Amino acid sequence: MADTEQDPGGVVALARDLIRCPSVTPDDGCGITALARVLEQIGFSVKLLPFGDGAARTPNLFARLGTGHPHLCFAGHTDVVPVGDVASWAHDPFGGDIHDGILFGRGACDMKGGIAAFVAAVRLYLDRTPHPQGSISLLITGDEEGPATNGTVRVLGWMEAEGQIPDFCLVGEPTNPGEMGEVIKIGRRGSLNAHIVVHGTQGHVAYPHRADNPVHRLLALLGELTAAPLDAGSEWFEASSLQVTSLDVGNTATNVIPAQAAARLNIRFNDLHSGADLAGWIRTVAVRHAPKAEIGISISGESFLTEPRAPVEALRASVRAVTGHVPRLDTGGGTSDARFISRYCPVAEFGLVGASMHKTDEHVSLSDLKQLTAIYTGFLEKVMR
Amino acid sequence: MADTEQDPGGVVALARDLIRCPSVTPDDGCGITALARVLEQIGFSVKLLPFGDGAARTPNLFARLGTGHPHLCFAGHTDVVPVGDVASWAHDPFGGDIHDGILFGRGACDMKGGIAAFVAAVRLYLDRTPHPQGSISLLITGDEEGPATNGTVRVLGWMEAEGQIPDFCLVGEPTNPGEMGEVIKIGRRGSLNAHIVVHGTQGHVAYPHRADNPVHRLLALLGELTAAPLDAGSEWFEASSLQVTSLDVGNTATNVIPAQAAARLNIRFNDLHSGADLAGWIRTVAVRHAPKAEIGISISGESFLTEPRAPVEALRASVRAVTGHVPRLDTGGGTSDARFISRYCPVAEFGLVGASMHKTDEHVSLSDLKQLTAIYTGFLEKVMR
Ligand SMILES: [Zn+2]
Ligand SMILES: [Zn+2]
Repeated sequence: MADTEQDPGGVVALARDLIRCPSVTPDDGCGITALARVLEQIGFSVKLLPFGDGAARTPNLFARLGTGHPHLCFAGHTDVVPVGDVASWAHDPFGGDIHDGILFGRGACDMKGGIAAFVAAVRLYLDRTPHPQGSISLLITGDEEGPATNGTVRVLGWMEAEGQIPDFCLVGEPTNPGEMGEVIKIGRRGSLNAHIVVHGTQGHVAYPHRADNPVHRLLALLGELTAAPLDAGSEWFEASSLQVTSLDVGNTATNVIPAQAAARLNIRFNDLHSGADLAGWIRTVAVRHAPKAEIGISISGESFLTEPRAPVEALRASVRAVTGHVPRLDTGGGTSDARFISRYCPVAEFGLVGASMHKTDEHVSLSDLKQLTAIYTGFLEKVMR
Repeated sequence: MADTEQDPGGVVALARDLIRCPSVTPDDGCGITALARVLEQIGFSVKLLPFGDGAARTPNLFARLGTGHPHLCFAGHTDVVPVGDVASWAHDPFGGDIHDGILFGRGACDMKGGIAAFVAAVRLYLDRTPHPQGSISLLITGDEEGPATNGTVRVLGWMEAEGQIPDFCLVGEPTNPGEMGEVIKIGRRGSLNAHIVVHGTQGHVAYPHRADNPVHRLLALLGELTAAPLDAGSEWFEASSLQVTSLDVGNTATNVIPAQAAARLNIRFNDLHSGADLAGWIRTVAVRHAPKAEIGISISGESFLTEPRAPVEALRASVRAVTGHVPRLDTGGGTSDARFISRYCPVAEFGLVGASMHKTDEHVSLSDLKQLTAIYTGFLEKVMR
């Protein structure tokens, strides 16, 4: 049992235990299994939910303590990205070394430290409130850093079928760029990819009227798509952004007008747009410049927003009480599993400082781990009745 | 000796003899040597001028009859493009078959037939004017269809050094698209190639403000270059044309803003521009959108024009007298060795019908060969004194 003075709720001990599981995506189960044991000791009823077959088999876990409402869920992942060049690490990536108040290891901040802080917070909360009216659950996947097809999405489907959808979900990803208390994420932009292939008629550059230059059609098409910003941002979102990521013709003959030209683009879009609307706009513009263009569009996520009502305000108040900072409510950056959870219930994200995530010598300070434990404890006390 | 009724000036016999030389570029000398013998028999003093070493060695010929002025030069090439798939030919490409009044073979119209017609015309002209006041020369290369570095350019340098620059040059390339008498070329557009590489800063599409998308810089740059026509054409030229022929990024990661984007373009320009002016314009526009762009520009030829004065009018009158058509004075199409000759003296181009040039079963009708012989003869009579 951890010394509660030195290690409140046992956050440091649990973070070390989890780091010592080399659970590179897809987690082979060691991270999930270690966590399941801890949760059962606290009193959670734990359901292991592996989905997928063969190489795609993904361990997942849903654990719940109590059955009442409000039902607060904590979501996260035990899998970690590969260590890369292990020789360039000063610390064993799976050793859980502590030096000068810093815990080192792959997953320290993204996000085994976050999971440990939440589990520690539950322990501390239950010490003072042994019989809460509401219930607490954890949705943990072993494949967030990978294709994410047999992880959170599948567990949410199972939760819906079982009537286990929570009233609010807190995702423990590292949200703070530089220090604790900077950012709570309350939404994410959507993401759309398009691949446009324009066909023309090949010919000699000396006789352009006998050819139909697909490059010029593509340039006009992309010129129109990029002519103006998609928007100037909305109340909670920064401006949507369209980035052309590739142009592909590959013609080395300087005197030949090519038969085909292609482009790829990505749009990160806010709540002023839907993926379907943007796809329709792209098709309309493309067809105007290139009637026979082939257009492939995939929408990898719609934008979502959790309006900052009671639970978000409770989280914000707890962050402020512990850190002294009023965190910014933010919707920027890349995607996370919150995009899937948002389809079922309000969701916000707050965790550790992410500066070292996915890097060599990933780490977290013990002080940050303890602060996050205190923030999560305060949040539980405010939200649970 | 050819029957002058059936074969005036021996044009058909000489065209067949030349076709039977398989002088694929670079002519190994068989076409040049065969022609040299014929010219010496007529009374020309022939200078063989091979230039280049090893694989680049190119046979060339300069032949002149008389030393007086006006000095009229006929320019052409004995080399031919490869036959391609010989099985798809109905006639031996180097056999010189005649069927139903059509002579078949590689080089029939481009341009052994044209050379034969000029030699035949000289014979017929000399029959009537055995002692002309002016002089007649031939500049013949064995590498017009190839890199053209050791051909016409080098012979012209030699001619200048020897004081042999003519007063006017007639190039015998096939200029008529469909039938004899349609087109005299009195100039050609210039040609410029540019390769533009734009550098940016790689990054994640979710954080475009931390990256610098070179694709967007390139799109803006090319958008400005292609926004408006370069001109609306000039008295003797069609409009200049800028064609973007390639775009190259090659980025397959849909969430990554690439570090580099490149484009190739070609400009065919008329006498309203110079290659240097256009190169300066491209650099100015490029630097405005992409200060660190790498820009490679090569000018493969300036535009040139031979104002339609006396010799061109004489050629036009002869074409009209023989064919009944008033030929169009044209400056369109691809480049020829006339671009090199134009640096030294006025030059015009008139030859056979080019419809079958570079194709399977290249051919020329005997009637066209005889018409061209008559046209060249009439031209000599009008121009020489
Ligand atoms: Zn993560
Ligand atoms: Zn030719």
